[in-house]
Amino acid sequence: MFFKIIGLLAAVLTTFSFLPQAIKTIKTQNTEGLSLGMYSIFTTGVLFWIIYGFYLKDIAIISANIITFIFAISILIVLIKNNFKK
Amino acid sequence: MFFKIIGLLAAVLTTFSFLPQAIKTIKTQNTEGLSLGMYSIFTTGVLFWIIYGFYLKDIAIISANIITFIFAISILIVLIKNNFKK
Repeated sequence: MFFKIIGLLAAVLTTFSFLPQAIKTIKTQNTEGLSLGMYSIFTTGVLFWIIYGFYLKDIAIISANIITFIFAISILIVLIKNNFKK
Repeated sequence: MFFKIIGLLAAVLTTFSFLPQAIKTIKTQNTEGLSLGMYSIFTTGVLFWIIYGFYLKDIAIISANIITFIFAISILIVLIKNNFKK
């Protein structure tokens, strides 16, 4: 049981960890230290996890990655916007 | 076979996406737009994935998350260092 909780915590923490970054980026519109490369690759990877989750019919993989995708894409949009301004 | 490749790509992309951010942060030492909250929570979550991976004896979960942990902790160290300077 203990390790099942560790696994659940791992999923919840890595999924919701992007929330404080999304809030900071949307609030400050400051993406100076952020890597456009990271968020482009990461968002694509998360999208693949969602597709793979549907293939496996695994609701945990689907839901966790849809949440992460929403946070990551909102950061990526601000990053792209700021990059166009330069 | 196609979806197995999608799953593998998802894991590789989300794991290595943190490499460009780690390189940028170490090179520029600029963490202005980065969220300390995100990287603290994310690094903890990745650590839990490693523990869970050992419990499952799943080499893919263990190796992917050890790689991500190395990138994430290097970003977190610079973030903490900069926060102490303020």
